Amino acid sequence: MYGLIGKIRIAPGKREDVIAILLEATSALPGCLNYIVARDPADTTALWVTEVWTDAESHKASLARPDVQAAIAKARPMISGFDFQVETAPVGGFGLSK
Amino acid sequence: MYGLIGKIRIAPGKREDVIAILLEATSALPGCLNYIVARDPADTTALWVTEVWTDAESHKASLARPDVQAAIAKARPMISGFDFQVETAPVGGFGLSK
Repeated sequence: MYGLIGKIRIAPGKREDVIAILLEATSALPGCLNYIVARDPADTTALWVTEVWTDAESHKASLARPDVQAAIAKARPMISGFDFQVETAPVGGFGLSK
Repeated sequence: MYGLIGKIRIAPGKREDVIAILLEATSALPGCLNYIVARDPADTTALWVTEVWTDAESHKASLARPDVQAAIAKARPMISGFDFQVETAPVGGFGLSK
């Protein structure tokens, strides 16, 4: 499995808009086992996103989909970048879909 | 919801043992919606754990369970600490159980 943990920096006042876009875009992408969006409770301009995919290729392929491209285009002006991002190799746990 | 993202530092050579303990301990704890264990592919002495709970109280209550206490006692000698830990407020996504 392939995982990503990232902290996204959002323009002030735009966090809820970005949350809505992310949640709408990731309902059931091929190869996606887990995708969770979380507010940073200590930082109103930050979001945490944790992802688990069957493999890195599935994640890469998702980024080429028209629906994901549209979501990225919509969210990008409100995102200033990643404060933090790490790739992981998930081994198991509770809550992996499919 | 209440979330935790942590990077755990493991004694050299003990990572697989700790993974086995963590996966066994977290099959279906009350209030646990998501619990994923991942290797750090760039660091053989590190593990990432991402958790989602219905609330902070459920997480706290889990730590008092005899089975979780036993798992903690078993893993603790192999864990040197958290390199990183953050609390989050998950809002939704894909792969939240129950």
